[in-house]
Amino acid sequence: MKRTIYDDDHEAFRSSVKEFLDRQVTPHLEQHIADKAIPREFWIEAGKQGFLGLEIPEEYGGSEAGDYRFNAVLTEELAKVNMALPSCVGIHADIVAPYLVHLTDEEQKKRWLPGFCSGEMLTAIGMTEPSGGSDLAALKTTAVKDGEDWVLNGSKTFITNGYSGDLIVVAARTSPEKKARGITLFGVEADRDGFSRGRKLDKVGQDESDTAELFFEDVRVPDANIIGELDSGFIHMMTFLPQERLGSAITNLAHAAQILDETLQYTKDRKAFGQSIGQFQHNKFLLAELYTQVEVTQHYVDQCVMAHTRGELTPIDAAKAKWWTAQVQSDVLDHCVQLHGGYGFMNEYRVARAWRDARVTKIWAGSNEIMKELIGRDLGL
Amino acid sequence: MKRTIYDDDHEAFRSSVKEFLDRQVTPHLEQHIADKAIPREFWIEAGKQGFLGLEIPEEYGGSEAGDYRFNAVLTEELAKVNMALPSCVGIHADIVAPYLVHLTDEEQKKRWLPGFCSGEMLTAIGMTEPSGGSDLAALKTTAVKDGEDWVLNGSKTFITNGYSGDLIVVAARTSPEKKARGITLFGVEADRDGFSRGRKLDKVGQDESDTAELFFEDVRVPDANIIGELDSGFIHMMTFLPQERLGSAITNLAHAAQILDETLQYTKDRKAFGQSIGQFQHNKFLLAELYTQVEVTQHYVDQCVMAHTRGELTPIDAAKAKWWTAQVQSDVLDHCVQLHGGYGFMNEYRVARAWRDARVTKIWAGSNEIMKELIGRDLGL
Amino acid sequence: MKRTIYDDDHEAFRSSVKEFLDRQVTPHLEQHIADKAIPREFWIEAGKQGFLGLEIPEEYGGSEAGDYRFNAVLTEELAKVNMALPSCVGIHADIVAPYLVHLTDEEQKKRWLPGFCSGEMLTAIGMTEPSGGSDLAALKTTAVKDGEDWVLNGSKTFITNGYSGDLIVVAARTSPEKKARGITLFGVEADRDGFSRGRKLDKVGQDESDTAELFFEDVRVPDANIIGELDSGFIHMMTFLPQERLGSAITNLAHAAQILDETLQYTKDRKAFGQSIGQFQHNKFLLAELYTQVEVTQHYVDQCVMAHTRGELTPIDAAKAKWWTAQVQSDVLDHCVQLHGGYGFMNEYRVARAWRDARVTKIWAGSNEIMKELIGRDLGL
Amino acid sequence: MKRTIYDDDHEAFRSSVKEFLDRQVTPHLEQHIADKAIPREFWIEAGKQGFLGLEIPEEYGGSEAGDYRFNAVLTEELAKVNMALPSCVGIHADIVAPYLVHLTDEEQKKRWLPGFCSGEMLTAIGMTEPSGGSDLAALKTTAVKDGEDWVLNGSKTFITNGYSGDLIVVAARTSPEKKARGITLFGVEADRDGFSRGRKLDKVGQDESDTAELFFEDVRVPDANIIGELDSGFIHMMTFLPQERLGSAITNLAHAAQILDETLQYTKDRKAFGQSIGQFQHNKFLLAELYTQVEVTQHYVDQCVMAHTRGELTPIDAAKAKWWTAQVQSDVLDHCVQLHGGYGFMNEYRVARAWRDARVTKIWAGSNEIMKELIGRDLGL
Repeated sequence: MKRTIYDDDHEAFRSSVKEFLDRQVTPHLEQHIADKAIPREFWIEAGKQGFLGLEIPEEYGGSEAGDYRFNAVLTEELAKVNMALPSCVGIHADIVAPYLVHLTDEEQKKRWLPGFCSGEMLTAIGMTEPSGGSDLAALKTTAVKDGEDWVLNGSKTFITNGYSGDLIVVAARTSPEKKARGITLFGVEADRDGFSRGRKLDKVGQDESDTAELFFEDVRVPDANIIGELDSGFIHMMTFLPQERLGSAITNLAHAAQILDETLQYTKDRKAFGQSIGQFQHNKFLLAELYTQVEVTQHYVDQCVMAHTRGELTPIDAAKAKWWTAQVQSDVLDHCVQLHGGYGFMNEYRVARAWRDARVTKIWAGSNEIMKELIGRDLGL
Repeated sequence: MKRTIYDDDHEAFRSSVKEFLDRQVTPHLEQHIADKAIPREFWIEAGKQGFLGLEIPEEYGGSEAGDYRFNAVLTEELAKVNMALPSCVGIHADIVAPYLVHLTDEEQKKRWLPGFCSGEMLTAIGMTEPSGGSDLAALKTTAVKDGEDWVLNGSKTFITNGYSGDLIVVAARTSPEKKARGITLFGVEADRDGFSRGRKLDKVGQDESDTAELFFEDVRVPDANIIGELDSGFIHMMTFLPQERLGSAITNLAHAAQILDETLQYTKDRKAFGQSIGQFQHNKFLLAELYTQVEVTQHYVDQCVMAHTRGELTPIDAAKAKWWTAQVQSDVLDHCVQLHGGYGFMNEYRVARAWRDARVTKIWAGSNEIMKELIGRDLGL
Repeated sequence: MKRTIYDDDHEAFRSSVKEFLDRQVTPHLEQHIADKAIPREFWIEAGKQGFLGLEIPEEYGGSEAGDYRFNAVLTEELAKVNMALPSCVGIHADIVAPYLVHLTDEEQKKRWLPGFCSGEMLTAIGMTEPSGGSDLAALKTTAVKDGEDWVLNGSKTFITNGYSGDLIVVAARTSPEKKARGITLFGVEADRDGFSRGRKLDKVGQDESDTAELFFEDVRVPDANIIGELDSGFIHMMTFLPQERLGSAITNLAHAAQILDETLQYTKDRKAFGQSIGQFQHNKFLLAELYTQVEVTQHYVDQCVMAHTRGELTPIDAAKAKWWTAQVQSDVLDHCVQLHGGYGFMNEYRVARAWRDARVTKIWAGSNEIMKELIGRDLGL
Repeated sequence: MKRTIYDDDHEAFRSSVKEFLDRQVTPHLEQHIADKAIPREFWIEAGKQGFLGLEIPEEYGGSEAGDYRFNAVLTEELAKVNMALPSCVGIHADIVAPYLVHLTDEEQKKRWLPGFCSGEMLTAIGMTEPSGGSDLAALKTTAVKDGEDWVLNGSKTFITNGYSGDLIVVAARTSPEKKARGITLFGVEADRDGFSRGRKLDKVGQDESDTAELFFEDVRVPDANIIGELDSGFIHMMTFLPQERLGSAITNLAHAAQILDETLQYTKDRKAFGQSIGQFQHNKFLLAELYTQVEVTQHYVDQCVMAHTRGELTPIDAAKAKWWTAQVQSDVLDHCVQLHGGYGFMNEYRVARAWRDARVTKIWAGSNEIMKELIGRDLGL
């Protein structure tokens, strides 16, 4: 069924994103994998196109789209390429952006936003810790006031953009006795003393995405680096959850839909036992199921995009979109591998990498189990 | 996520439907089951409310809503009561109505539509045959020209409203050599010589719905009872498939959603091992999954309703909605039974009847397998 | 793969069971459904064949097989007929029997076992209560000592053989403060004052099985009716759980396997679109999956039978067999209905009744959720 | 439930295998991955232990166990380490061995078997071709008689041990017009002119296993290298299918069971929200389900082992074991990854590699779809 949420402006924007990706990115994907990194040139060029500042006011160098659907279009097009691009760009332009726009004062905006938009200052966000996973109440990284400064100690793990990021938004405990209500967000520049990074993590997939552990050993930051209110980090993080989860959902589905389209074509081209393998009834029915599943889900995600564009998307509805799309993506890609036969196990085939890349989406940014816990509570259970 | 497709007029209409059901129908549901029939009084009262003629022009006694969303609202409210009501009403007011409005001449309209709207003339549609199932090309009922009349011979089975219907739209083969392209539709009044009905079928569920076999033994009907064009029955049936499938989808989902809501309440009220059973994590996660599944699907169905309201819904998109909702309904209700424990196996509990009633939705009006075959072909397979 | 656990003696016994069922039972199945009861004649005839006393010593009228595989063969053959027969016979001959043999004194044996074996005294077991479900620690039925007697008050529900049973093994609380460790088992004859039965429950399936609520209002029983040790009812019940669960597992699988065989034949006989419907690849693969699933499970159940024959089956391994077979049965039968198309929704087809009958197996005698809880604990969780 | 198929001799053998693996193999696993190869030293040492010649008569250097259960024990222990070891060893010692023992003449036995047993001559088998997948009737590699020699042309792909193998059993078309009945098996030594290998394939998992494409360009082999009868290759391959499929099944299940055990331990050790994550009911139930699934399957596989030991295992029963275990393995490992949270996406965790390694088991050596096709035919469909 035809999608209805985008108008001509969005589609024109989509064309420009596609053109950019075809020209600047697609030819270099193998290099990204070999380097286990997306090069800074990518960020600079994306910045020139205005893709990094969709949420940032023009006065600070942003493109101030003022309509989340442009973010959605950008995310979709990146996700058609692979999982790492929308993940890395999403952390910066979709997840960190609102913190730097809505929780900062004028001085911080001037200091951070121009580089943010130009791609010269790459950002990451540090919540997850080695011991605690999704349990923010168990956060162990501390920030202790010492004169004018705060002194941070602790470590973070699974940090996307962690290896190359220039500014890390770090959640640290400032009031130990107050559990989730004693957490503060700090902007920590990567060149501060005491900050270090572990090696790039060796992941099952998304080799191009630099994921790292971060270490804070008596890292001093001034008051001026606090983002938002003291002890209000938890509430701040909750505020931006709908957009974070929705971005995941858009990515999951656009990625799966693209690989499914490529797989359909493969089943038409590949012959066995005298016919296209897609014409075997088992495969035909399977593809009919997968397309139905993707299309049903697409319209839900689209309505989430519209709700978020109107400022009405709740964290719970976004949670539904996030876990459901992750499950759909996982199912679809596993079947796509199977439809490729032995080639589905070869990394040179896009479907093989897609399968590996996508395994994490049921886990990261709040696992499917965490999402279900939250939805269950919202049901009054 | 809030649904967005209905405005105040639709919601006012919903209130009037609800009020009618609460007053005229709900108190008599056990009687319907005992009688294995929905009484004619129901139809007459529904006719008075204008519920049967939403698609019928005012000049013939209809309420001419001119907006499919009113049909959708009516279907949803009926489906919250049980499966048999939307099924029986849907056959008449949603499935047969377009045949009698769009394929008939002025004389036929005057003859049939007033009684159709008032509930005095109940209709059914006879396609399925004992030997052929969904395979219209194998249709065996024949209509042979004899002077001014056509003489019908054959039988139909699984006919909803078949036991009490006054006018049956019958698909019969008029050009034996032309396979699917040799089928014509006839309006057959139930009082014609040679027409008879088998017993009410003893079904797994939907006891209230009268489902019967129909027999045609040298039944004579005049030319004036042909509905649409000679030999064009197959094309006519294809034309109205989107609305038929969409009606099924709306029913399936509204029914499942209602039982799910009642089950959630049950899991809050029922205690075991010292707590509400809905609070056990297994049940909590399960309910979170079921609510997500239903809500995701709801927004797809809603977009189908909008597409159909705009006249754009394709048979394939409607097929996706039909099989998917049938599967969702089946999954949801099986879990709802389980959540009721032993009471889920007792007919006095609504969930038990719902589970039995709904088993047929993966089968009737084009099984899930047929839907997947069609979708697969549409994918080019 | 050929089963290996039965030798010629078991197969000879199987033949005699089959011959009995073909002659005495199969011709009357529709009558059982109409009566909502298995007639006493069945029990008397089964008793004459020695089928009811496989576990009972010869001196008390039993056939003392001394090898659980004979029970297994009997259960399999009954389950090929329907679900109600193995359920009702199983309660009596497989579940109650060990209580009356292993926990009784000489006087009780002489009083109860001959009638038990002859079918003149039909038994039931009363554990489940309306409010408590599977939670024995919440048992509300009480037995209070009054002179030489015990006075029972309370109610039981979902009691198989409850409507026609002559002797009910009742779990009642004798030491209120001791939770699960304060329960005692009593043999309660149905003609005692204060004992009454509710109506036969109107169930989703197994119409032939009389299931009832039982009420105890100041029912007096003497000390001599205590079965086993005072306050040891919980331990006694635990002791016999492996056999109870294994009997369920054997029933579930044999029933599903039989209906699957009949369905395979149906898919060979039924034609659509010019071929046997079983030859459509979707159906062919589905049947291959179902047969694999049943066969894999069969060998597990068979090994459980061997372990139990050796006296080594644990309650946990039996729990695995019970929930797994219930799930397999449920999946298999749902697909078998679908393979029958519209006829699968008609009660005159065996598959339709099978589907309804079997829905309870994931619930009764410890739901699948309870089984998983127990298995989880056994894993150290 | 305790397994019953192994006696003390088998368990003593298991201990020796374990001891060997602990000493010679486990310390070098990371090196194997880095090298993308299992070194020749491994083969030589395994040969010294007699592990490679279980099927080979003593007179040719074998250990002639004469009881397939020893093969099964070896396979299980290798599979507990990873997927690549049982795969590479299995191709050589379980799959190629029967060809070289049962289809060879005395001269061939003397020429090939001693090196086979000692590990000096590593073998592979070349069936699959780039264009044809599982469709042997479409085999394109040809062998044309030229004087005393046969001249082979063609290519093979996905060949395990292909990069390091010394003797390749190659299926080639000798009678083009006879389809599957015109195929002959040749032993092709890797040092023959015209034979070459492609690069090691870059796979999703099993990095340690050398998988390669093989090219044959006018490779000449003498008559004496024909294995079995001319034009009988297809029948020969069918003959050994039960053992090949059973070996896959044993591997799949032993590997999954081992990772499941490690995951259970992880869920006991890992804390979140104040308790072991395995104690959350969702995880507890999930682990109960996975253990049940594995244990049920284990007893089926064990009975297959016994049937094969007796020489009675059919290709169809082996097909059931193969696809079912592959599905179980895939399901179990995906859940095991999820239970590890973010760490499940890190290659340094065994579960992450296991998940990647095992994805191919639903595809290789006859995909699950091919197995279902065969089982379906065996059902008469």
